[in-house]
This record gives sequence, C-alpha cells and structure tokens, in this order.
Amino acid sequence: MRMSRLFLRTLRDDPADAEVPSHKLLVRAGYVRRVAPGIYSWLPLGLKVLGKVEAIVREEMDAMGAQEVRFPALLPREPYEATGRWDDYGPNLFRLTDRKGNDMLLGPTHEELFTLTVKDLYSSYKDLPLSLYQIQTKYRDEARPRAGILRGREFIMKDSYSFDVDDAGLAASYQAHRDAYIKIFDRLGFEYVIVHATSGAMGGSASEEFLAVSETGEDTFVRSPAGYAANVEAVTTVVPDAVALDGLPAAHAEQTPDTPTIDTLVAHLNDAFPRDDRPWAASDTLKNVLVVLRHPDGTREPVAIGLPGDREVDAKRLEAQVAPAEVEAFDDKDFAAHPGLVKGYIGPGALGTDGETGIRYLTDPRVVTGTRWVTGANVQGSHVIDLVAGRDFTSDGTIEAAEVRAGDPAPDGSGPLELARGIEMGHIFQLGRKYADALDLKVLDENGKLVTVTMGSYGVGVSRAVAAVAEYAHDDAGLVWPREIAPFDVHLIVAGKDEAVVAGAEQVYADLIGEGFDVLFDDRPGKVSLGVKFKDAELIGVPTIVVVGKGFVDGTVEVKDRASGDKVDVALADLVATLRS
Amino acid sequence: MRMSRLFLRTLRDDPADAEVPSHKLLVRAGYVRRVAPGIYSWLPLGLKVLGKVEAIVREEMDAMGAQEVRFPALLPREPYEATGRWDDYGPNLFRLTDRKGNDMLLGPTHEELFTLTVKDLYSSYKDLPLSLYQIQTKYRDEARPRAGILRGREFIMKDSYSFDVDDAGLAASYQAHRDAYIKIFDRLGFEYVIVHATSGAMGGSASEEFLAVSETGEDTFVRSPAGYAANVEAVTTVVPDAVALDGLPAAHAEQTPDTPTIDTLVAHLNDAFPRDDRPWAASDTLKNVLVVLRHPDGTREPVAIGLPGDREVDAKRLEAQVAPAEVEAFDDKDFAAHPGLVKGYIGPGALGTDGETGIRYLTDPRVVTGTRWVTGANVQGSHVIDLVAGRDFTSDGTIEAAEVRAGDPAPDGSGPLELARGIEMGHIFQLGRKYADALDLKVLDENGKLVTVTMGSYGVGVSRAVAAVAEYAHDDAGLVWPREIAPFDVHLIVAGKDEAVVAGAEQVYADLIGEGFDVLFDDRPGKVSLGVKFKDAELIGVPTIVVVGKGFVDGTVEVKDRASGDKVDVALADLVATLRS
Repeated sequence: MRMSRLFLRTLRDDPADAEVPSHKLLVRAGYVRRVAPGIYSWLPLGLKVLGKVEAIVREEMDAMGAQEVRFPALLPREPYEATGRWDDYGPNLFRLTDRKGNDMLLGPTHEELFTLTVKDLYSSYKDLPLSLYQIQTKYRDEARPRAGILRGREFIMKDSYSFDVDDAGLAASYQAHRDAYIKIFDRLGFEYVIVHATSGAMGGSASEEFLAVSETGEDTFVRSPAGYAANVEAVTTVVPDAVALDGLPAAHAEQTPDTPTIDTLVAHLNDAFPRDDRPWAASDTLKNVLVVLRHPDGTREPVAIGLPGDREVDAKRLEAQVAPAEVEAFDDKDFAAHPGLVKGYIGPGALGTDGETGIRYLTDPRVVTGTRWVTGANVQGSHVIDLVAGRDFTSDGTIEAAEVRAGDPAPDGSGPLELARGIEMGHIFQLGRKYADALDLKVLDENGKLVTVTMGSYGVGVSRAVAAVAEYAHDDAGLVWPREIAPFDVHLIVAGKDEAVVAGAEQVYADLIGEGFDVLFDDRPGKVSLGVKFKDAELIGVPTIVVVGKGFVDGTVEVKDRASGDKVDVALADLVATLRS
Repeated sequence: MRMSRLFLRTLRDDPADAEVPSHKLLVRAGYVRRVAPGIYSWLPLGLKVLGKVEAIVREEMDAMGAQEVRFPALLPREPYEATGRWDDYGPNLFRLTDRKGNDMLLGPTHEELFTLTVKDLYSSYKDLPLSLYQIQTKYRDEARPRAGILRGREFIMKDSYSFDVDDAGLAASYQAHRDAYIKIFDRLGFEYVIVHATSGAMGGSASEEFLAVSETGEDTFVRSPAGYAANVEAVTTVVPDAVALDGLPAAHAEQTPDTPTIDTLVAHLNDAFPRDDRPWAASDTLKNVLVVLRHPDGTREPVAIGLPGDREVDAKRLEAQVAPAEVEAFDDKDFAAHPGLVKGYIGPGALGTDGETGIRYLTDPRVVTGTRWVTGANVQGSHVIDLVAGRDFTSDGTIEAAEVRAGDPAPDGSGPLELARGIEMGHIFQLGRKYADALDLKVLDENGKLVTVTMGSYGVGVSRAVAAVAEYAHDDAGLVWPREIAPFDVHLIVAGKDEAVVAGAEQVYADLIGEGFDVLFDDRPGKVSLGVKFKDAELIGVPTIVVVGKGFVDGTVEVKDRASGDKVDVALADLVATLRS
C-alpha cells in the first residue's frame, strides 16, 4: 500500500473528547473516526488491525472445536421477553418498531437465540457437548460511552455458547473456553489477569473476567500476594466474629449539634465524649446512606445502606448487587415523602421494613451481632452511642456495597489485597439452566429421560481489543503494535528526492512484496518533509521501519525497530533476512 | 469437519413459507435459519459459503484499487436529513431513538457517511480519484421480505463509493467498478446480464444493474437480439411521429351503455359503430387510471394516467417514475372527494390541473399529437370517439408507466424486445454531485479553485449472492455448488460398519486434510443408513463426493461428481491426483 493513495490523514491534535491514550492515538493516526457518541468508523489501517484480531480469535475458537455461525443483530422481542431481559436491560437496550408495529431490538448478546436454535435442531444427549460462536456486531445503549472504541454503543464481540447435558460437561466446556481465552490473550500481547466476577444480569453461577491491566481501565480489581484475584464487584468481605452481648454498655443518646458529617461527628465525639483507650474514629460510626432502586418494571424503591463511617458506598459494587435494578439518588422529593428521616442524623431506629419509615435497611457484613456503633438518633443534632447490633437494632439483610480498600484481607485468607485497574476483555459465565429453563431447551438423556440442558456463555471484546492493545502498546510518539496484529509488517520510507534513491525505494518495495511482506510505502513526494514522514511512521506504529536514503548508493538501508528505537544499517542483500529474524 | 459434530440437521420437508428453490434448499440443507420475517441466521455451512463469496468480492475490489473500510450500521439522523433521505426512504428505513432521545437509523446504504468522511480527510484534487468500499450488514424494512435471504430485511452488502474531481474521472471510476463486477460475477458462476437501470431514490444520472437470470427473480428485464438490455423500469417507449391535425374527423360523444371495461367497450363499438377498414381494438381506446401518490412529507396527491386500453399500468415502472413518492390506490373516499369523476367513463375532459377536478393528468408517450382515441365522456354510459390529442385535449406531461410487452421495439432500434426475469445482484450508479452538493464536499482543483466532487456508488448483494447461486445451481436432489464457493471441497462418506472400512475412511480423511483439502466427513455411525448419507450429500451439494466402501479392501474408493452424477472407482494411490484434476 502506497501512502500517497492510502485513505489516511494523520492529525496533530488530540480529538477534543479524548481522554485515554488509545482513543487519542487511534484517532490521530487515522485508525478510527467518530460518527456519533460511542459509534465509530474503521478506516483502512484500523480495519486491518481489527481483521487480525478477529483472525486470532477465530483460530483459537476453531482450535477448541467451537463452530462458527452468525446470527442477526436485529431481533424480535419475544425470546427476550421470555427470559425477562427485554425489561431487565432497561435503557441499555436499543429498541425499535418495524413497519408492521412489531417490537424489535438490536442484540446486546444472544443467549436466547442460540438456545432456541439448538432447541430447534437438537434433541439428544448424543448431540452434546456443543460450542457455537460468532464474531458479530453488537449494540448497547451505554449511558456513558467513552474512550473511543473502548466502550462503544456499536461494537464487535466474539460471543460463544456451550450446551451440555450435565454439570460436569458444563465445567469441561467452561474450562475449554478458559484455556482458549488464555491463548487468545497471550497472542494479543498485553498484560492481563483472570479475576473472579459477578454474573450480574446474565444470571448463572460462576464467572470470571479477563482484564487487560491498564491504569485507564474502567474496572477496578483486587489481587493478593498469594494469587487471589477478583473484580471489585465480586470481592466478599471478611466477616468478623460475632461478639457476646453480655456486659456491653447500654446505648445512650447524646447531644451532637452541628455534626451532619462523619468528620464533624468524630471531632465532636473526641471533644465532648473522649475515650480512655483510644480516640473515636470514623470506623466507630455507622453511616446510613439512602438510595433509590429503579426496578425494571419502573417502580422506585428507597433503600438504606448501613456501613462503617470510614467507608463509602462503591457505586459499582452496589449496582452489581441490585441488578437488574438501577441505582438513583434519594432526592429532596424522597425526603419529603419520608418525614421520619432527619437529614444527617438518620439511625437504624427509623429504618427497616418494620421501622417508622418502612424503608428497607441493608447493612455491611461487618455489622455483626455485638458490634457497637455511634449512629444517628433520628433527632436533629443528636447521635446514639453504644448502639449494639443484634441487641438494639437489626437490619433486613446484608449487602456488599462498601468500597474495597488496599490492605483489606483477601476473602480466601491469602493476605492483604492490592487494588489495580483493568479493561474487561473477556467474560466467561457458567450460566447453568436459566435460559434453557426459560425457553424449554431439553434433550433426552441416556435413559430416555428429558433433561434440561446446561449452558455457558463466553465473550471477547474484539473491537475493544484493538483499543486495549493500543492502550498497552504505545509511547509518547505514537502506537507500537505487536507484530501479530500490526496493520503492516514494514513501514518503508523514501528519504530524499534523488532519482536513484526514489527508484531504489520502489525496487525495495517491489522486492519486499515479492517476499511476502505486507508493506506500507511512504512514497509521498519530496515536498513532504522527512521529519513529517518519520513522525507519521512513529504515530502509525508499524513494528519495523525501513528507510531508503543516502546510504542507498552504498547499498545499505536503515532498519529501525519501532518499539526499541534501535537502528541498524543493513546491506540490501541482507534486508529480507534481517526482517525475517 | 466431522458430520457427527457439525451443527446441522437436514430437513425432509420444505419450510412452509418457502416458494423459491434457493429458499427451500438453503433451509432444508441447514445453511440458514429463519429468526423473523426477512431475518436469518447463518449456520456453519451457510457461513462458509458466505465467507467465500465475501472473499471473492474483497479480492476483486482490492485488485481494482478500492480500499476497504467499515462504517457503523447504527447512524445518526442528521446526514440523512441533509440529503432528504431520512424522509425519502419512508417506511423502508428502520428508525429508532436512543436513551437520550436522539433519532437514529439503521443504514440502508452509506452515501452520506462516506461523503462526510472524505470531506473530513481530503481537500485537494491530488487526493483523488478515491474508491472506498465496505462489506457490511445493512437494513431495509421491506414491505414484502421474501424468498429467504434473497430479499431480507437484514442483509450483507458490498457497497463502494468513488470520488472524482470531474466527469471524466467519474466515468473512469464507474468503468473500473463495472469491470470488477464482471470479474466478481464471472467467478460466482451464474448467468447474468448487465441492464440499463433507473437511478430511483438514489439520484444521479447513469446506472446499470447486474441481474442474475432466474425465473424466480423479482425483476423483469428486456433484451433485444442486437444486445440492448434494460430493466423494465428503465425501458423508454418508442414514440410514434405526431400526426397532422388537418382533416381529422371531429370528436363525437356516443351512447355506450354498460361499458365500464375496455372489453365491453370494444365489443359495443364493433357492434354499434363498426368501422370499414378494421374492427375496433383495445389499442384504439384511451384508458384513464387513477392512483394516489403519497409523498415523503405525507401529502396524498391524486394522479390520472392515460394510456392505450390494451396496456396495463406496470406498478414497478410507475413507482420508479414517481419515487420517492409511493403509489396507493385511489379509493372510494377519493372518488367521493371528486364528484366530477364518473367511474368507468372518465375522460380527459375532467382531468388535468386546469380541468374540472384539478387532478394531474399524465399520458403515455404514445399519446402524441394527432392520435385519435375512444375515451370516457365523463357521463355515465357515454364515450367520445375521435378525441384527438393536441386538438381536443392535452395532458400535464407524459409518464413511462405502461407495461412493456414482448415484441415492443427496443428504444435503440435494435429490434423487438423479449422479456425475462432476474435477481438484482449488483447496481452501479453515476451519482454525480447530489450528495457532495448536499453535504458540501469540495476540493481545490489544479487552479486552486473549489470544485464540488462527483461521486459514484456501487453495490453487490453479498448474502443475496449465496441465494442467487443456489437458485442457479441446484437440481431435484439438492444444491450443486460451484467449486469456488462450495462449503467444502470433498464430501467423504464411510459406507458400512466394517472395521477396516471405517478405519480406512478415517485414514482417507486424515490424508485429504494433510493434502490441503477441506473435507466434510460423514462419519455418522452405521445405524445412519447409507441412503440417508447419500441423500444428505446430494442435498448439501459439495462438488465432489468420495465413498469409502466395499471396494476399499481392493484399494479403491468411489469418486462421484455431484453436478453430473458421474461415478468412477479410483485407486487410493490416485485419489489426490484425481481430486486435483
């Protein structure tokens, strides 16, 4: 491909809406172009990289014995209605109506359709196990599309589905996918971790995520020195032992004027009610946070979350717990509707389905029987001290909604957790029988008895992988593609206007193509400066840059490694061998 | 691929909704499966064929120097608003609203987006010519999706767009596409014709269609012995010479009771007003047909079409002429709104924008000045005889809406036309400057002056091609794929349960794969009868069938050509060479 003909314009400036490096560089280097929020076009360079990622995914899926199919993106409502996902997806689903008034949707993922098709075609345990996959365009109406193709509203996914007659089969299919994913992500060439995950709206029992480790990732995950790893939504709190209630001091309400925040409360406690053993800390207080859950059917349910005052509610952990409901703010109208709540001084006394307000009250798992708390007295300017869980109050249940912090113990006892960020690149689910039950997918087992099929579902973000690699493989000057998915093998530059040099570069171009290299040839005429050519080459990020310049008369060209910056002069006769090595 | 693992169930019965052979066979042989009207899934066999068609299209587009990109399918409204197509597409466009209330659409074709992207990146005549293409999923909410993947609502198209600085450039780009299409369709292996076409809602000056010749095609085309070919919408009528008005008899109204149809009128004329030279014929009468045009803005406009009584209005020709307006019936309500119309006896006197009813009156090109007609007198039971065009009445213009018949003269004088049917497989348009004007795509020319770019647009129905080939290449037993797009090279059958034979077939399978053949191996156990295996092989349509059976002990296998049915016994040692030849 000649640069003089390539449909490309590199840009000097970052796009105004770009925050993360991959977004900036993929747009500046002419790989993708924005059409609408979260919706991008693939220009020739980008499409080449995307095609190579697709090829890797396809090879590994074929190698594990999965069979490729392709389902439509435009789908009828009925199957999604049957599993509840028409509603559960809420505003994340693109819905539309066809000319005859039928409700349709743009598929966010295809469990329903695969289930129905297997039901149509198969009827016996002998047909299983079966793994089907597709590489296909998917749609989600994200509330916050961001970072270019990293989180788009139209994107390409590899999704696959396994069908087994029993749990052991599902476990084997799950493991086969897990192994294939390891091969895929090893080949894509970025650092990744496999973490325990929650199943969320997908349903099912076990699931793991493959996260590309990246500071700009949206997902927070934890890991322990001994190898525990989980995304933050899946971390379970290590619950302290309950404390015997005998001999605990009685609760007593105290005046705590002007202490609507944890900080002001702790300061006041240490000032007015100092303790002998140690000062009061935020962790001695029980903070009650109000939110509203919007359920898929549209109903709004206020909920109170009680957690130690030194921790915030983690929005994503909360969302994962309450899905498919969405979390909204508890606003002034909600306060007005519950006059029993005293803003800044809310305590368990007013909460709970049996309490004055009737608001469901869920507490952090650390709030075990016998723990003593300072918390709101439901009176302006007053808190209760020594309010004991299990004696003075109970909740309607526990919830894993408090933030996870570096140093928290790993749930499996493997040591203190550290926090890091990642990009979700793959997600594998043991769905179990949720979809097969809803859509009645049964086969005859060895004894001629109808049994419900058990399923797995497995995704890889294919278009996202292009951005994830770019996020991992770049420097200040531009992209640095790993060889396996680079748009070209060689970026050839002609340096200078000298006729012999230009003719020499043309010859090198023809020779390299003849040797099977995929070459991007910057043949732009002499008035495009060499500086611009080098800058573009670094920005575009082809792994090897070959410069045909002054040395050509002596029979040498310069070979530069984009990643290391190392340059060597190579005799023309040795060029092919050097590039091969 | 082993048949025992392949995700496939062949069906004995045709699907209930299938009318054409490709639809029946592609569903029965397990290539595609219906999800909703006009929306299909590709099963493994179908996806393999589709991939091969895509590869042919990609190779030929790359070879002509077009660059591949991929645009989104989900698009914002604004660019389509700017060109008027948001409205012009009417109910054929899938429209939806995102969570923020923005209007969006599923792209039926991408002129607007390509124009805008070229405008973003390019600014000089030096950047042109440019041809870009994509192979991508498209959407049209067809009123009558039919024939499986032949006319779907979600389908795969190759669409390309050329950009040139002047008309000569456009002509060259158009010709390059035309040449590439000839290569593509030659390789796909069905009979096709290239016909003159109308541009329709797409706009632009010249256009041609590539039609696969097929009795089951939706499109009618004409051809003359000397090589003229056009789709029926594009045929222009050979207009007779005008006749001098001097000496023509005066018009006279006559009683013609109970003659509301052409047949009854002609019978009555011959009965009551016999002519000396020849009997009255339907072609002597002028029939006035009323329709209503629904314009994109929703307004309904009644229109009268005057044409010789021996010809019907051809709905497709009419639609092509009035697009983007759609044609609706002129119903009883419309009659009630125009009391000046006498049903069955409508004549030019009541028609025309200056006439009593104000209804626009368009006549067939044959209605030239001096022609004499029998037509309605606008009085119940009465017609006018010798009503002369250009003397007694005029119309508001002419329209090419009358049916074209076998034997009609070709417009270029190349002889009588014959009619045939075809499937539209490709369409190439010289768009000109319609889109560039609407979206302001200009570049600087050699003199530094801004000029509007001139464009072409070119489509190939990629998913449709799978059906078109199937429509062409099948027999009573099933599909008969041409080698280049067959799902497999060889269909290998093990005949019998004998251990040596089974082991031998396994060995042949391994050997053929080793030699680079793509093999479908029917390894299903002995209880699947040989008859079923042969039936499935014929239905699936792989070009070569190899049977490992009794002859194996003597070192031979049977090689059968699916198309001809010819069978030969081949020594194992010669198998690879035989298959290669």
